[in-house]
Amino acid sequence: VARKLTDAEIQAALPKVPHWRLAADRLQRDFEFGDFAEAWGFMSSVALAAEAMNHHPDWSNSWNKVTIELVTHSSDGVTERDVELAQKISQIFNG
Amino acid sequence: VARKLTDAEIQAALPKVPHWRLAADRLQRDFEFGDFAEAWGFMSSVALAAEAMNHHPDWSNSWNKVTIELVTHSSDGVTERDVELAQKISQIFNG
Amino acid sequence: VARKLTDAEIQAALPKVPHWRLAADRLQRDFEFGDFAEAWGFMSSVALAAEAMNHHPDWSNSWNKVTIELVTHSSDGVTERDVELAQKISQIFNG
Amino acid sequence: VARKLTDAEIQAALPKVPHWRLAADRLQRDFEFGDFAEAWGFMSSVALAAEAMNHHPDWSNSWNKVTIELVTHSSDGVTERDVELAQKISQIFNG
Repeated sequence: VARKLTDAEIQAALPKVPHWRLAADRLQRDFEFGDFAEAWGFMSSVALAAEAMNHHPDWSNSWNKVTIELVTHSSDGVTERDVELAQKISQIFNG
Repeated sequence: VARKLTDAEIQAALPKVPHWRLAADRLQRDFEFGDFAEAWGFMSSVALAAEAMNHHPDWSNSWNKVTIELVTHSSDGVTERDVELAQKISQIFNG
Repeated sequence: VARKLTDAEIQAALPKVPHWRLAADRLQRDFEFGDFAEAWGFMSSVALAAEAMNHHPDWSNSWNKVTIELVTHSSDGVTERDVELAQKISQIFNG
Repeated sequence: VARKLTDAEIQAALPKVPHWRLAADRLQRDFEFGDFAEAWGFMSSVALAAEAMNHHPDWSNSWNKVTIELVTHSSDGVTERDVELAQKISQIFNG
């Protein structure tokens, strides 16, 4: 099981994941697209990245909007795996 | 724009969509699957049904769990289109 | 049922769908991506566009490569619907 | 790199993957669904399984039909990884 990061470690990690915020003990980011098809294409790539890491987001979608929250449930907090998945998701978003 | 259903109309429609509940002025249902891959396969079929109707769910996913909420934002409430999409989603779930 | 376009009509339509070729009585185009996740994100958006039109591609995928062939089976040839779907697919690809 | 299986090894493996055939030096299987949405839901689950294994199918789709071919390109033939992915795909299909 990945170790829960301390607050200091999370603050040190945040610059590695621009546009992600720490809230409610999770890494969070909102994404907006031109329409549902674009949002869904993005989510479909993210789903693959998540399954490949065997680490899955808590996420929601409403038409062109996607909100992603990352937390390691088994560690009860943010771990290095969340930072890694956040980086991959940002790469997918940046195309 | 579809007309917002009255409370009486929604109560009359609920038997047409078993397992869906009315909450917060929306049709809601929780789904649970064996793993993320199953949940995602279901969501991928639902995404097609939604796009074909040009009527999209507010939904969230956490690994094997999916929660779907249906509301017609432009009508500020539940309409016949939400009932129709709920029926299609249930059909997809029942396979 | 959409009417099968004549050869002259298809030649006149091709400038509307750059990068698509006419071969084997179909509109065809090859796409290449950085990896499978990118290819799959694209395909997931195209799937929505196809379902919304109720007009579906014959397509194949091998890791980062996608080949799409468009034909209207019920008309036994290329129709305006294929041209329209080709345009939508190109828009999705161009992002 | 996984080792290419000998013909004898492939024949011994085939009973582990019912409904799959050996053809053109590949494991192949055809799937048929009720409609495109069902086919696409299946493909979306398979895409996750493939990405998790970092081993991807050569596959094609035409509305409700999906044909999957499995080969390990880097080994120039069928390997244990193809047998494993075939098993996972059959599990997804069987639900």
